[in-house]
Amino acid sequence: MPTAPRWDSLWINVSAATMEPDGAAYGAIEDAAVAVKDGRIAWIGPRADLPDAPESLAETVHDGRGGWLTPGLIDCHTHLVYGGNRAREFEMRLEGATYEELARAGGGIASTVRATREADEDSLLAAVLPRLDALLAEGVTTIEIKSGYGLEREAELRMLRVARRLGEVRPVTVRTTFLGAHAVPPEAKDDPDAYVERVCDDMLPAAADAGLADAVDAFCERIGFTLEQTRRVFDAAKARGLPVKLHAEQLSNLGGSALVAEYKGLSADHIEHLDEQGVEAMAQAGVVAVLLPGAFYVLRETKLPPIDLLRAHGVPMALATDCNPGTAPVTSLLLMLSMGCTFFRLTPEEALAGITRNGAKALGLDDRGILREGLRADLALWDIGHPAELSYSIGLNPCRAAVHGGRVRGEGAA
Amino acid sequence: MPTAPRWDSLWINVSAATMEPDGAAYGAIEDAAVAVKDGRIAWIGPRADLPDAPESLAETVHDGRGGWLTPGLIDCHTHLVYGGNRAREFEMRLEGATYEELARAGGGIASTVRATREADEDSLLAAVLPRLDALLAEGVTTIEIKSGYGLEREAELRMLRVARRLGEVRPVTVRTTFLGAHAVPPEAKDDPDAYVERVCDDMLPAAADAGLADAVDAFCERIGFTLEQTRRVFDAAKARGLPVKLHAEQLSNLGGSALVAEYKGLSADHIEHLDEQGVEAMAQAGVVAVLLPGAFYVLRETKLPPIDLLRAHGVPMALATDCNPGTAPVTSLLLMLSMGCTFFRLTPEEALAGITRNGAKALGLDDRGILREGLRADLALWDIGHPAELSYSIGLNPCRAAVHGGRVRGEGAA
Ligand SMILES: [Zn+2]
Ligand SMILES: [Zn+2]
Repeated sequence: MPTAPRWDSLWINVSAATMEPDGAAYGAIEDAAVAVKDGRIAWIGPRADLPDAPESLAETVHDGRGGWLTPGLIDCHTHLVYGGNRAREFEMRLEGATYEELARAGGGIASTVRATREADEDSLLAAVLPRLDALLAEGVTTIEIKSGYGLEREAELRMLRVARRLGEVRPVTVRTTFLGAHAVPPEAKDDPDAYVERVCDDMLPAAADAGLADAVDAFCERIGFTLEQTRRVFDAAKARGLPVKLHAEQLSNLGGSALVAEYKGLSADHIEHLDEQGVEAMAQAGVVAVLLPGAFYVLRETKLPPIDLLRAHGVPMALATDCNPGTAPVTSLLLMLSMGCTFFRLTPEEALAGITRNGAKALGLDDRGILREGLRADLALWDIGHPAELSYSIGLNPCRAAVHGGRVRGEGAA
Repeated sequence: MPTAPRWDSLWINVSAATMEPDGAAYGAIEDAAVAVKDGRIAWIGPRADLPDAPESLAETVHDGRGGWLTPGLIDCHTHLVYGGNRAREFEMRLEGATYEELARAGGGIASTVRATREADEDSLLAAVLPRLDALLAEGVTTIEIKSGYGLEREAELRMLRVARRLGEVRPVTVRTTFLGAHAVPPEAKDDPDAYVERVCDDMLPAAADAGLADAVDAFCERIGFTLEQTRRVFDAAKARGLPVKLHAEQLSNLGGSALVAEYKGLSADHIEHLDEQGVEAMAQAGVVAVLLPGAFYVLRETKLPPIDLLRAHGVPMALATDCNPGTAPVTSLLLMLSMGCTFFRLTPEEALAGITRNGAKALGLDDRGILREGLRADLALWDIGHPAELSYSIGLNPCRAAVHGGRVRGEGAA
């Protein structure tokens, strides 16, 4: 008489890139078995160590047909929710339009702010879904989404509500970040400090009270907000118990990354112009470096982030799409593996860690990003012969299936 | 009593980027109608000019739901058929392996030649299909495929047979190119001229006799074949009545493009190091410039092809993936639009012409690449609001449907 199955499901005929940080490259287990129960990984190891025939151990046995399992992918920095697009601006610039002509045509972030403010929740949601679906098709199971194109309370909250709804209509975990300090809106041009005050005293508290912000971000740059203004935003976040992260050192070295370290924040993002002092501060505070090769590509940047310093100081490196309509209309996280390796000379293993283990760290999530007993059963199954293929291929999507919280995508909402 | 429908099918609720070279940008017709009969475009124009209600004019009426129709995409330069992949070599290089270590590990083109020679036709076909399917999903309806990893008669013919079979098992037009002079195979290292003789006197005639070659190509470069050797290959092609094209001026300026012009060839490809004299020769002979930004990206090349000179002299510019396992493991033609604009500063319209109208020219095909009465009904339907979005987006595939010779993909083989 058979005993009742112990597990909900069991994956066999797969190799596993567990992304466990120590041991074999990619934490690889060849010919592995991965068991799932109640949305968590209940067991993982060499298939030969299974105590019994797979069918007797689980309700459902999934045949991986020789593919590889990785943690579900994590895109830890996106501006996915926005209205309109900037394709015509992109075109006009390539056709030789001057900045004046672009401005007259309503270009730049102001055009996205206008389109986002004008859109209601449903139309914003509809605009975002194709972008989200492109990411999900590549095995993304967790995504961070920022506000920052509303730049007034109601429009910022609307963006964050749309982000939350995306996590309801699709089987993906959404982490929201309040980015009211993304840019000074046109109507506040003459008094940026007054705008920062609204961000800190009105918009941020409203987002926090509504439970719409899991973290707080700002754009600290000569063309954005000063270190002092950023500090005020961070203080407001701290007062609400929200962790911080920062667009830092993208165009110049203002010391934003060290500020994140001072606030024990989650991540400093972009950081092409980061110096060793900043790297040290990040290392000591456990701040993750989020590298964004898509913006590097679009801007034809030549200044590389200090990868060797980050390695030397043991700063965890994450990779993300930065999906946004201006500097990175990117909806392929796999392509960021390629660009991270090609532009930044990451190894394929570092790149994959950047969208799994370290992507989770950048979001402050310790329940995912590694295939390990007790962590969430967020998985991606790949038709590949070696994990390096994920970074090597350009424009191929070998993702055959994804699992979010134990549920295979397509078999039901999670 | 209704008259019999005149057309097999009719597309409405679409705009059309006809890519007609003169007139409106993209040859655009907003709110267009496109009629198909016997695999050809039977009529195209503003929907308002239709003489009657759509349903009375065609057997099938397709609702484009506000999208855009373009010509089916043309990838005019690929090495799609090969065995194995070079992901581990890519990884070892990023992990700091020396060239000696890579060579000892069997890296480089030699490893692809070995894997390709070892594979039989069916396993080669199976290896290629995921790459082809990725391209087809983006609306590709015509693809060029080269030999060049066999480097001996039987293996070269096998590659070309696989290429032909791809056109039977998938609804796509395949144009084959014999590239025996891709590299000197390991066993012929000591006597390249003897290998070129085999290419000219044995391999090329065999491919031509078997009807497996639509064109002939060579790799003219210091690390490839000399101008003189290339000339011999071109003479052999001419003797068989086959048009020529060339990997030219990628790493240095050897005068290969002018040689193509001398032979009234189809295209000179790569051409980063092309000078004005070469551009003039191409212009006079009607040779197409095929730009390959994927290899430019992978090699982190900084020398740009002479785009302004090509424009000034009216040389048609095509874009292609160059899909190959070493310098461009690229299976997204849309990404080449982005890279063509970002790296080479093409306008989105030039980029799109490069994978439609000029892609056809690079293959010597005058029956496609433009939406025009009498040409093939090869179409792609896109969920976009403006054709510039195809170049602006990075990693998004808005292709909703494709038509090959009048047949909608998925509704039956073509
Ligand atoms: Zn950003
Ligand atoms: Zn090539």
